[in-house]
Amino acid sequence: MNELRIIPVPGVGNIAKGDDLVGVFIEATDAASISLLDTDLVIITSKVVSKSEGQVVAFDGSEEHKVRLVEQEAKRVLRRRGPLRITESHHGFVSANAGIDLSNADEGTAVLLPKDPDRSARRFRSELRRRRNVDVAVIITDTFGRVWRNGVTDIALGSAGILPILDLRGTRDANGRQLEATEVAIADEIAGAANLVLGKAKGTPFAIVRGLDPSYFGDGSISEHMVRSPFDDLFR
Amino acid sequence: MNELRIIPVPGVGNIAKGDDLVGVFIEATDAASISLLDTDLVIITSKVVSKSEGQVVAFDGSEEHKVRLVEQEAKRVLRRRGPLRITESHHGFVSANAGIDLSNADEGTAVLLPKDPDRSARRFRSELRRRRNVDVAVIITDTFGRVWRNGVTDIALGSAGILPILDLRGTRDANGRQLEATEVAIADEIAGAANLVLGKAKGTPFAIVRGLDPSYFGDGSISEHMVRSPFDDLFR
Repeated sequence: MNELRIIPVPGVGNIAKGDDLVGVFIEATDAASISLLDTDLVIITSKVVSKSEGQVVAFDGSEEHKVRLVEQEAKRVLRRRGPLRITESHHGFVSANAGIDLSNADEGTAVLLPKDPDRSARRFRSELRRRRNVDVAVIITDTFGRVWRNGVTDIALGSAGILPILDLRGTRDANGRQLEATEVAIADEIAGAANLVLGKAKGTPFAIVRGLDPSYFGDGSISEHMVRSPFDDLFR
Repeated sequence: MNELRIIPVPGVGNIAKGDDLVGVFIEATDAASISLLDTDLVIITSKVVSKSEGQVVAFDGSEEHKVRLVEQEAKRVLRRRGPLRITESHHGFVSANAGIDLSNADEGTAVLLPKDPDRSARRFRSELRRRRNVDVAVIITDTFGRVWRNGVTDIALGSAGILPILDLRGTRDANGRQLEATEVAIADEIAGAANLVLGKAKGTPFAIVRGLDPSYFGDGSISEHMVRSPFDDLFR
């Protein structure tokens, strides 16, 4: 059994609209003497993806403006309490405040979610392959709350080259019995693991995850495989 | 910035009631030539904790018996669909089927959750300190589903020596702005990370997490800090 390593990529500055994220990543890994492997996975926090793609809006800092932005951006508001909105985004993500982020945004602005995080992940992956001839997987992460547990965790917003869900159905345990609850959301576990080295305050948007089981790599997208369809949802 | 390493501990056999879990762990780490550090965190899957503590009941394998066990074990049933029950446990954990597990149980049995996972974690920690003079943190993990996303992830059921929630409120971002959404459920992120190397089918109940930020260590318990009080919950 191999160990898993999560390696933060230091030395990345502020990102603005139009910035070449793949170029920034290559420069930072080169500066840190990190050589990429085909079995690596690259973590990118969604904030820098949104900023490079121009998913940024003017924001005057007031509670009223925030609520207005959230209600504009959300496809559906599931719950309201004071200024808090639990929303479903146009991607199908259920989160607080339509995923709009005011931290690490530039003064007078708020950062929206990327338009299509799976596509952003696929593009980053293929562009990195083109420039560096390395076939990494990619996960774009964001920070979401949970219904029944305190605190937030990072989850996978978009992915490329990694199975969002590892399907162990049909696998047998040590006693030969069929496993239960065997669709493991490995993309979310990887996203959360990376947040342990990235943190929120350290300003590092990239990490490398090295040593993932080879069976974890494959096709799939977060929008298609991870987002629960309303039909399956007992709590919407 | 340091990298994080997640190291599976191989070579652990089946666990039965009364087994000395700390002894089993020490033997396995010695056999694998893993030297523990004071800054390490030990992951233990709840299954072996439950089994060693005798939290095992007779189970005839039928759907009816399963539902009966679940309804007995649950403090409250939140939703029913077919044989599926979404329940609140006496600890306050919301999960499918009261956390009762039929996989990796011995024939004719089902495994309940540990009675007090935080206490089990504290005992493991202090007993390991006594025998090996090493001051590790401990997280006991289990596998839970989520409301709005497919697949299951491992979460922290009990902990000792690690902050369940890292409170970054008051921290400022690179632009000097106060961070939002800054209570990070690091214990759950650590639990999920460990599941990436443990898997469900590999029969390894222990992993070592090495390289956690020193600020993550401290007092707290899952029952006190991670379980959301019904008052705060918009969806119960």
